[in-house]
Amino acid sequence: MPALKSLFEATSVAIVGASDDPHKIGGRPIAYMKRLKYKGQLIPINPKNDTIQGLPAKRSLLELDAPVDLAVVAVPDAFVEKVIQEGLQLGIKNFVVFASGYAEINQQGIDKQAKLKALFDGTDARLLGPNCLGFINTETQLVASFTTAMEQHPLKVGGLSFAGHSGALGAYWLDKTIRADIGVSKWVSSGNEANLSLDEIVAYLATDSQTTVISLYIEEIRHPEKFEKALKLARKNNKPVIALKGGKTAAGARATAAHTASYPLKGVDYQAIFKRTGVIEVHSLSEMIHCSQFFLGGHKLLGNKVGIISISGGAGVMLCDQLEEHGLTIEPFSHPLHDKIKPLLSDFSTVQNPVDLTAALVAQPNMLRDTTRQLVDSNEFNVVVIFMGLMDSVAQQLTNGLLKLKNNPACPVLVIWMGGQAALLADIAKKGMLVFEEIPDLVTLLSNVKP
Amino acid sequence: MPALKSLFEATSVAIVGASDDPHKIGGRPIAYMKRLKYKGQLIPINPKNDTIQGLPAKRSLLELDAPVDLAVVAVPDAFVEKVIQEGLQLGIKNFVVFASGYAEINQQGIDKQAKLKALFDGTDARLLGPNCLGFINTETQLVASFTTAMEQHPLKVGGLSFAGHSGALGAYWLDKTIRADIGVSKWVSSGNEANLSLDEIVAYLATDSQTTVISLYIEEIRHPEKFEKALKLARKNNKPVIALKGGKTAAGARATAAHTASYPLKGVDYQAIFKRTGVIEVHSLSEMIHCSQFFLGGHKLLGNKVGIISISGGAGVMLCDQLEEHGLTIEPFSHPLHDKIKPLLSDFSTVQNPVDLTAALVAQPNMLRDTTRQLVDSNEFNVVVIFMGLMDSVAQQLTNGLLKLKNNPACPVLVIWMGGQAALLADIAKKGMLVFEEIPDLVTLLSNVKP
Repeated sequence: MPALKSLFEATSVAIVGASDDPHKIGGRPIAYMKRLKYKGQLIPINPKNDTIQGLPAKRSLLELDAPVDLAVVAVPDAFVEKVIQEGLQLGIKNFVVFASGYAEINQQGIDKQAKLKALFDGTDARLLGPNCLGFINTETQLVASFTTAMEQHPLKVGGLSFAGHSGALGAYWLDKTIRADIGVSKWVSSGNEANLSLDEIVAYLATDSQTTVISLYIEEIRHPEKFEKALKLARKNNKPVIALKGGKTAAGARATAAHTASYPLKGVDYQAIFKRTGVIEVHSLSEMIHCSQFFLGGHKLLGNKVGIISISGGAGVMLCDQLEEHGLTIEPFSHPLHDKIKPLLSDFSTVQNPVDLTAALVAQPNMLRDTTRQLVDSNEFNVVVIFMGLMDSVAQQLTNGLLKLKNNPACPVLVIWMGGQAALLADIAKKGMLVFEEIPDLVTLLSNVKP
Repeated sequence: MPALKSLFEATSVAIVGASDDPHKIGGRPIAYMKRLKYKGQLIPINPKNDTIQGLPAKRSLLELDAPVDLAVVAVPDAFVEKVIQEGLQLGIKNFVVFASGYAEINQQGIDKQAKLKALFDGTDARLLGPNCLGFINTETQLVASFTTAMEQHPLKVGGLSFAGHSGALGAYWLDKTIRADIGVSKWVSSGNEANLSLDEIVAYLATDSQTTVISLYIEEIRHPEKFEKALKLARKNNKPVIALKGGKTAAGARATAAHTASYPLKGVDYQAIFKRTGVIEVHSLSEMIHCSQFFLGGHKLLGNKVGIISISGGAGVMLCDQLEEHGLTIEPFSHPLHDKIKPLLSDFSTVQNPVDLTAALVAQPNMLRDTTRQLVDSNEFNVVVIFMGLMDSVAQQLTNGLLKLKNNPACPVLVIWMGGQAALLADIAKKGMLVFEEIPDLVTLLSNVKP
């Protein structure tokens, strides 16, 4: 079995420190897997109870008849070492350790983490953590995590995967994918990386058949050469990689040391690695989500040419400025396209790029659909951007028109709708057209995905 | 009476081209002013009807007994000239012209605009427009505009004013102030500026006693010296000026020409003017609104020192990086402050800047309030930034704690709450703490307002 498959695709899991309380750290993974119907075998381990959340429990790992694929260690840090020793003795190959209080706090913690790491020396067993939130695999509904982000809503199953040092940022990422209705495959919080670091996780995701887009939150790159090799593998397999990098400044690096015992300024030139491997660097989770949606929608930007259709002259001006400042180009229409567009507009409209639909759109809502179709079909643009604002009285008709357009993979359509109606925007987004509230968000996306 | 007061503070208004239909261009100003109880005299002018929307109407301006302060000209472009001539004949000093089809379309339009402008030569009468959306003065509820942005909700009365070339962007700005519950004083759409341009409008706002913060959308700066003088006056009167600049690139300038007949690349170095006068340049309406809220809340950033409190180590790292990259500083705590903070946190937390509250916050929600109070009262920071995410189970308690804090003008508190609950965030915002969804939005604000 390839590296890490038996960890991330475990078909039998023991939860050590299992709790009857579904809100406790040792209770949450069990509650999630029961609710989501985990497709493997789930065994709670608890020294006192015969059953946990209705499932038959064992007193310790040593009572198991055979080694499980994975032991999730949800006990306080003082008991972690003993649990790992018992698991290794039984022949378990994969462990997740949630507890904190290791190399991220002080010298005593550094020593404690060194001892934990040493337990794995000379074995082929692997450890995710400590000081991590674990991982999720939606394919089998394996939730080896105590994140609270899925308490209200489950994850949708899909092709987007995430791995990163920060559990909390990972949780906010989960929350954002749920709100944006994005399908997720794997989610991994790597914490202090005593044994297993991001490079190996990225290599796993790069060959994982369920994963189509990879997103990362990176503090320290512990093994630059292995990391770069993994990123190259992702590129070879046509999986876009989108990364947030933390700890780029002196103050940021002070903070990573106390967070996940990461020392990101130790001389690794992450920007050079990103450049050589085509990694897209983003600066917020929202930006990461927008980028992911673009690729998950099957879009690709094949060139820099943007066609713009706007209800506001001023917004068209701002779009032109900001797109040109970010390396996109807004070129005038060819004569044939000009002649096709002219009869679609009112007499007052100047036919140029951007097209200013003016208030005439209220009387002729089909103007938006027809103009968009002409621009998309002209082969003169790599992407068409629509700017709308308010327009409550005809918003439904405008939306219906957009939904009638055929997808053209060579020319995606993106929409900014300022003060738009949430339900209509959701319909447009479902059709595969990304929708934004503000101009800079869209400009940033195009700047990120441009060739 | 100082320049433009009789226009923007008109106590009698005639609407020429008045309509019974409250959705038509000539009906909407009347409908708004009736609904909002305009404090002056409102006279509809219509060649056929004796009453308009229930108000007694005159057949033409020439039938008025005495000149009104302002004539709003809501007739098609072919009739504009005649209406102005009649108004001037009667001695009316102020006109607003909505019609488009002038210098923004072609040579014929340029000639038509020159004729319109010439009507005012040798008079002291003034014209706002053509090709504009008019203006609003909330003090008297004078709505000399057909904007649709207030159809659902009226404007709140307050100290924020806006002037700009784009009517549509102005309308989105109105919509955003309504959604953000921001009080507005004057709102002006200047359009093609045949007679009255932004420089004079800024000079008016700079001395207007109702206006405390000025926001601008600028395409062409037609009179750079007068414009700079007006901005200096605003500065002298302690009114922050926040500006969006359109038409900075070749493509953007092509678009402004067709929009408001503006030629922004004619050699005016707007950035130099902004720098000399302290104008804050923003890049989106959202950024403009955030900046306005900061100043309207009475906040001021007196230095670059930021104290950070975070529920997520990773978010603390990203905040440090992005703030330092934008010229803010995150310095370690003094020993006395360190000793005050230590007992407030869990044993696992490293006491440093950023403070990582960790999941211990769930058990002790007062930790947030107490830590924030210590940082604000320490005089070691010019602003305190709080990062929260999710935390649904204790969100109400955390909010209550924050609401108990006393405002310290020398150290504003800003909040990022990712995936937060809308109702609680609104409570926090009402208390004067700005609330953001994402890190870059807050970083951009601090970068804009830093000394």
